[in-house]
Amino acid sequence: MAFQEFKWISELKTQPHPLLSLGIGDDCALFGGVDQWSVSTDSMVEGTHFLARDDPFQVGRKLVNVNLSDMAAMGCQPDFFLLNVHVPEDYPNENLYLLKEGMQEALTRFSCSLIGGDTVTFKKGPLSLVGTVIGHPFKEAAILRSGAKTNQLIAVTGALGGSYPTRHMSFEPRLQWSKALCQAGVPQAMMDISDGLLQDLGHILDASGVGADIDLDNVPIHSDVPSGSNALKAALSDGEDFELLFTLDKSDIENIPNAIDYTVIGVITPESGVLRGRDHSKCPFKLLSRLGYSHDQS
Amino acid sequence: MAFQEFKWISELKTQPHPLLSLGIGDDCALFGGVDQWSVSTDSMVEGTHFLARDDPFQVGRKLVNVNLSDMAAMGCQPDFFLLNVHVPEDYPNENLYLLKEGMQEALTRFSCSLIGGDTVTFKKGPLSLVGTVIGHPFKEAAILRSGAKTNQLIAVTGALGGSYPTRHMSFEPRLQWSKALCQAGVPQAMMDISDGLLQDLGHILDASGVGADIDLDNVPIHSDVPSGSNALKAALSDGEDFELLFTLDKSDIENIPNAIDYTVIGVITPESGVLRGRDHSKCPFKLLSRLGYSHDQS
Repeated sequence: MAFQEFKWISELKTQPHPLLSLGIGDDCALFGGVDQWSVSTDSMVEGTHFLARDDPFQVGRKLVNVNLSDMAAMGCQPDFFLLNVHVPEDYPNENLYLLKEGMQEALTRFSCSLIGGDTVTFKKGPLSLVGTVIGHPFKEAAILRSGAKTNQLIAVTGALGGSYPTRHMSFEPRLQWSKALCQAGVPQAMMDISDGLLQDLGHILDASGVGADIDLDNVPIHSDVPSGSNALKAALSDGEDFELLFTLDKSDIENIPNAIDYTVIGVITPESGVLRGRDHSKCPFKLLSRLGYSHDQS
Repeated sequence: MAFQEFKWISELKTQPHPLLSLGIGDDCALFGGVDQWSVSTDSMVEGTHFLARDDPFQVGRKLVNVNLSDMAAMGCQPDFFLLNVHVPEDYPNENLYLLKEGMQEALTRFSCSLIGGDTVTFKKGPLSLVGTVIGHPFKEAAILRSGAKTNQLIAVTGALGGSYPTRHMSFEPRLQWSKALCQAGVPQAMMDISDGLLQDLGHILDASGVGADIDLDNVPIHSDVPSGSNALKAALSDGEDFELLFTLDKSDIENIPNAIDYTVIGVITPESGVLRGRDHSKCPFKLLSRLGYSHDQS
């Protein structure tokens, strides 16, 4: 689509700022002086991110949860939420009520306070929603995509693939697991899986200047994925899993809290941008992807 | 309109938070620990806030400037900006370019760093924009709407009215004046005039639990207002002036920096919610508005 080619946001020049620790390019930006803060924003537009027939309660809850998942991705506690709601005149009042109830459930559940917002009515077009979340690191520092180093293990929480058509509307942002992992000092690099495992692992490799070998046999395939020859592909590339993808030092594996459902799927290598996989334990690794500057950053 | 009756945002329960100093209801929310931060968000939707025929450069610049004006209103320096852009497929690429250039001009001019955002393309509907700004007080503390006290003077910067059809697209957010006023310790309550002087003064009176007497002869009428019997009404009630409205102790009048174009228009009274005006210096004050809980808070 013309607009995405435009690479719009990234063309706007960001100016250096003494209180900005991390700008655009990770799951959150980081700013602050004595106290560090993280901030992230995500939009949802009808027809693109959800359908007119989707349950408005689930749409509202998902708007909050996709933003909270960005906080989990950085090892941050969500504190504050801002909300912009642009509503076509013919949008039913009962749906607005449900939308609000869905947001309320997620905000209350994760102790996130609504502190600002804006509502607009317009004549005709899609319901359009924006959430912005502000938080702070669970431990001293947020966990970046750029923290991966050679010989670290690569792990994912939960199981992957088949999030469409239903699970993506009711997923659990992995805040509790992120908190437990961070308090145990485990993650060295982290993000949430929103665009599919391979693409998102690519972001970590790009940001860290490293490569990865993946044991494809170990990738946890979600029970929502139909069994068959395409199951692994679904687990590697389906979007909206909203699980955590993180790296850790080998010696930290025993420090992962018992409550966390995780799987080690591979290891970081020194070959910058080279992502390799093997699908039988006796076979050699094969190139899955060679990353580079042309790689589509989101 | 059905949606506004719904009072949507205000029905979402905000939870108390130990790091939240000021929630919804002023120009910005305030949060933080050792360092205080302010945050505000404003949307602009085609057909509601601007027209398809408006210059995209001015639209982009205005999106940033309306948000920066909320910072000026609280006596805060804008530091960081987040941007959500929802674009219909048929929106011309050259307009996207101009939109971006307009945003860039305002962000660069006021040293505000873009630190996050999101872009969405959708099939059909209005261009829809959201800006979110994060900043910090020019002096120790932000200036709230609730700081007005009996016998304080009421002042406005610049001149009012006639902002439509042109000036509202090219106004200057009063950051420099706000900074100079705050550094001189002058404003006790402050906001920006976006809904018209009388309505916005009403917000200060509501928040402070006071009343006001206004010398209508002193209200500065902008040269954009056509002369005639309706000129004063335009200055009192036209929207989008984006000037500063503030109260000050009488003894501070000599501390207002020379560079600031301001006019004293009245005085705060103890009569909670009673806004009176006189339009000839010898006439008695007459009731302009009696505010109360039914008053339309924005």
